[in-house]
Amino acid sequence: MCGIVGYIGDKKAVPVLINGLSKLEYRGYDSAGVSVNEGGILKVIKCKGRLACLEEKLESQKLNGNMGIGHTRWATHGEPNDVNSHPHISQSGEIVVVHNGIIENYMQIKEFLKGQGYVFKSETDTEVIAHLVEYYYDGDLVDAVMKAIDEIEGSYALGVICKDDENMFVCARKDSPLIIGLGEGENFIASDIPAILEYTRNIYILEDKEVAILTRDSVQVFNSLGAPVDKEIFKVNWDVEAAEKGGYEHFMMKEMYEEPKVIRDTINPRLKDGGLVLDNVTITEEDINKLDKIYIVACGTAYHAGVIGKYIIEKLCRIPVEVDVASEFRYRDPLISDKNMTIIISQSGETLDTLFALRESKKRGARILSIVNVIGSSIARDSDDVLYTWAGPEIAVASTKAYNTQLTALYMVALELGLKKGTITKEEADTILNQLKEIPNDIEKILENKEDIQKFAHQHYNAKSIFFIGRGLDYALSLEGSLKLKEISYIHSEAYAGGELKHGTIALIEKGTLVVCPMTQDTLFDKMVSNIREVKARGAVVLAITQEKHAEELRKTADTVITIPDVDSLTAPISAVTPLQLFAYYMAIEKGCDVDKPRNLAKSVTVE
Amino acid sequence: MCGIVGYIGDKKAVPVLINGLSKLEYRGYDSAGVSVNEGGILKVIKCKGRLACLEEKLESQKLNGNMGIGHTRWATHGEPNDVNSHPHISQSGEIVVVHNGIIENYMQIKEFLKGQGYVFKSETDTEVIAHLVEYYYDGDLVDAVMKAIDEIEGSYALGVICKDDENMFVCARKDSPLIIGLGEGENFIASDIPAILEYTRNIYILEDKEVAILTRDSVQVFNSLGAPVDKEIFKVNWDVEAAEKGGYEHFMMKEMYEEPKVIRDTINPRLKDGGLVLDNVTITEEDINKLDKIYIVACGTAYHAGVIGKYIIEKLCRIPVEVDVASEFRYRDPLISDKNMTIIISQSGETLDTLFALRESKKRGARILSIVNVIGSSIARDSDDVLYTWAGPEIAVASTKAYNTQLTALYMVALELGLKKGTITKEEADTILNQLKEIPNDIEKILENKEDIQKFAHQHYNAKSIFFIGRGLDYALSLEGSLKLKEISYIHSEAYAGGELKHGTIALIEKGTLVVCPMTQDTLFDKMVSNIREVKARGAVVLAITQEKHAEELRKTADTVITIPDVDSLTAPISAVTPLQLFAYYMAIEKGCDVDKPRNLAKSVTVE
Repeated sequence: MCGIVGYIGDKKAVPVLINGLSKLEYRGYDSAGVSVNEGGILKVIKCKGRLACLEEKLESQKLNGNMGIGHTRWATHGEPNDVNSHPHISQSGEIVVVHNGIIENYMQIKEFLKGQGYVFKSETDTEVIAHLVEYYYDGDLVDAVMKAIDEIEGSYALGVICKDDENMFVCARKDSPLIIGLGEGENFIASDIPAILEYTRNIYILEDKEVAILTRDSVQVFNSLGAPVDKEIFKVNWDVEAAEKGGYEHFMMKEMYEEPKVIRDTINPRLKDGGLVLDNVTITEEDINKLDKIYIVACGTAYHAGVIGKYIIEKLCRIPVEVDVASEFRYRDPLISDKNMTIIISQSGETLDTLFALRESKKRGARILSIVNVIGSSIARDSDDVLYTWAGPEIAVASTKAYNTQLTALYMVALELGLKKGTITKEEADTILNQLKEIPNDIEKILENKEDIQKFAHQHYNAKSIFFIGRGLDYALSLEGSLKLKEISYIHSEAYAGGELKHGTIALIEKGTLVVCPMTQDTLFDKMVSNIREVKARGAVVLAITQEKHAEELRKTADTVITIPDVDSLTAPISAVTPLQLFAYYMAIEKGCDVDKPRNLAKSVTVE
Repeated sequence: MCGIVGYIGDKKAVPVLINGLSKLEYRGYDSAGVSVNEGGILKVIKCKGRLACLEEKLESQKLNGNMGIGHTRWATHGEPNDVNSHPHISQSGEIVVVHNGIIENYMQIKEFLKGQGYVFKSETDTEVIAHLVEYYYDGDLVDAVMKAIDEIEGSYALGVICKDDENMFVCARKDSPLIIGLGEGENFIASDIPAILEYTRNIYILEDKEVAILTRDSVQVFNSLGAPVDKEIFKVNWDVEAAEKGGYEHFMMKEMYEEPKVIRDTINPRLKDGGLVLDNVTITEEDINKLDKIYIVACGTAYHAGVIGKYIIEKLCRIPVEVDVASEFRYRDPLISDKNMTIIISQSGETLDTLFALRESKKRGARILSIVNVIGSSIARDSDDVLYTWAGPEIAVASTKAYNTQLTALYMVALELGLKKGTITKEEADTILNQLKEIPNDIEKILENKEDIQKFAHQHYNAKSIFFIGRGLDYALSLEGSLKLKEISYIHSEAYAGGELKHGTIALIEKGTLVVCPMTQDTLFDKMVSNIREVKARGAVVLAITQEKHAEELRKTADTVITIPDVDSLTAPISAVTPLQLFAYYMAIEKGCDVDKPRNLAKSVTVE
């Protein structure tokens, strides 16, 4: 997830690009760059760091053209540094590209281009596009871009400029957003509306596989066959703040809506020839067979992902897994040796306790596999294997989409280990993989029905104490559901294993106490129904979350049943957490809380 | 802990004994028995089960004497069955004894008596007393009893009758309570006041090592040297209900006051020649060296003991330990083999989920060591090794003294395993053992200062949400402190690892929120001080519990500091939990809750 801006008009391009990029910093901020066509030469200035670093560089190296493209980056391929920053320039300097998305077959294209004599400077997937467009370019930029995107698989929003023509540039998209801003004697492209809102409120929303040519005075859009498309003008009436949130009231809701996409982004690039190929994970069969135990170490929401990871890895790989809170793990003299692997989970990759837990593990000989969302972060750098969650930047303090992708990554790790260790067959792995691929669709359906949860929250937001109970994977889900609610609504909630209720907590259940029950585990369903009966006998109000297939039966016992599409118990958590996130969101909204910036909390805990 | 009643007078003895025993059933109820001198013959009727079973038996076998002794049992040595029930009769039928307490050197005495031709029928420690008194008896019962108690080590309250004399009997005590009730033409003994309150309110409280002779019209008390003692009459003005609670307002407080004694009872009998000998634990060095992992499985309070057990066993034995809630463990297809041991913890020995977790472990080949409080309970019977906590019956639903003894037992298991595995030296083990022996004294001091906690509770009982935070062993303590508070005061409280606060929960801290911090871990002290500063910065009121040595420093940061005597961080939890129990107790009292019988809860959870 990166920010793209492009400009052609009578103004100087650079200030417009920088201004636009500054509005997109929430989309990525590990490096930035611009390129303009200055009298037939493509000049590129870029650097690692926040936009401010680029601005500083531009103080000393003025760029004067009236047409250009800019980029602010959230690394996916290749760590953040000057070379990997966008824009990327082609071998002979003819073509410059900015790109948002992930090119899944970039390795094959890279090999092909290398065979053609192309030399690669960066580790990015984007650089292949620059060279590929140049490879096809014979004076017609649109034609070259169309040929190039015919070859590439994956997602992209592209801005492409060519040294031969100062008076036009080309853009294209598939599965990554791109809009065109229509001005007077000037036109824009951007990955998101806020970038251009200062200049125009008339936009085209580019559809998948459309390509456009922009000049000062015209915008022509073509479909994938090259036929012209008649676009409708979309009038933006959002203010800048709403625009940043993609029209959603809060980043948290925007990020929940991104869940289907980011799960796909996390899975799809790892699918090769019908199987799973985990980039940056080099652990061998031999390494795996040596393992007698795996530790999973994390904090907060990532720790809750780890609790699910334990169940899944033990089930699929038959290796004992211990999951621990980083702040406890690092101080308790853990029994770690070179027969262990430690899986480290962190959205930011900078969580201090987690980083120190990693180092403690490593010192004692464990192999480190990390699941992080920020390329080149401290945790990623210190790990032997890294599996990135491609969730993009998460702005809301309460994590949502990052959690779903952490789970997705953990399932993929379990499949990888299980296959290599021989504890699951290729067929079993394929079945689970197919289930994972369905999850984004399921979440889309859950989001469509979010009003049911909103209604329930409206009736119950005054609750003082709320309990989440679940068994097995649903207990792990309960932990996360409870934390989410606590973080943003400030309601004291607590998660309990269903069987533990009677050992104390049930004393707190009185008339009207709200109890939330995720119930996605078929084999534990009846036991949970018994637990519901117990709390209802003491007057509790029960909200249950279950698959459609169970809904009718469960309505006989629970007061309210929220359904998720039918999904296998094993992979249910990835979609079943979304209703819990929505529940926390709406409870907080009803209570008038600042959802995106809850009191006392920071996004990334980089102190002890 | 058993119930004892004795009678001499003009009434028939049996109805008085049965009536008295019925008032002592809270002291034990796994078997019962009586013995009377019927015209020079000592008749004994006894059976397993509640008192009602004995009464039924007495319907068909009438006993007519006017002097006798009775007993209701809480098994310590030998499972509850007819043979192990009291009273115990000597070889030739001359002497009958009832006993409360534990004879620590009974194995040596047994060997000696066997050499003298005595044949033992039961597995109890008590039977040795009957034979030993007979061995010394030459017409003078007091002399024989005094010689016998000179030989025995441990604790005892004794009632002894002799076939040669219908007009007197003898009693004695050390470290187990015994009182003498003074009537008109009749006298009584009892282990506790309620047994005789219907007949007299004038009592002598027998002191340690005192021996008494009772006739119809006289009571003579002697000290250990045989010199007469002038006893003061104690007038009982309690009602029956208060008397059952030993004068305490609630069983819970009574049971907290029993903690020093029951910890001693759990340790002392296992001390042999300066070392530890765990009866009923037969695990060998070879067995231990085979273990690659230990599971600890339990529910509720016992689970929290297990969390501490994990730290201790990993530290002292360097074997990885996984602690799990029984209801989760049994359903999650745990990875168990014959290279594992499962430690099962349960007060009642009948907790259903725990029992099934035991069976699941056993089926998969694990060795089972259980820590239970009830001899012959289902869990004890199904285990390979059993280490009993000699906490006696616990009446209050919220567990207190049982928890302290579960911890004590876990430390002893860790020492045993560590010594056999060679991960600790004899010197290190001795140091820890000496610390354990000091703990009862420390708890006595804590109980003396309970008013400080009462005062604090009086000021804060209106709190709606309370958080417990700790690190390492203090985190485990926090879990138990929070559960205790929840169970009996119905205040929603929650325990957090100090380092996890910033990952969500701190959002709930606002002005006046009460935060309780056990801080007994020296190496984590400064980190906890930082955590206190964080919550205080958000307005929290902090109650800290720490060793005296840290108190002065901590008073600079925390609002209130409750101290425990200086104790090593490793063994601190056993005494440091007592202030947390007192805190829960006083909060509940201030709120007017039914402390002993909290709503919705049962003492032992024998259903799923």
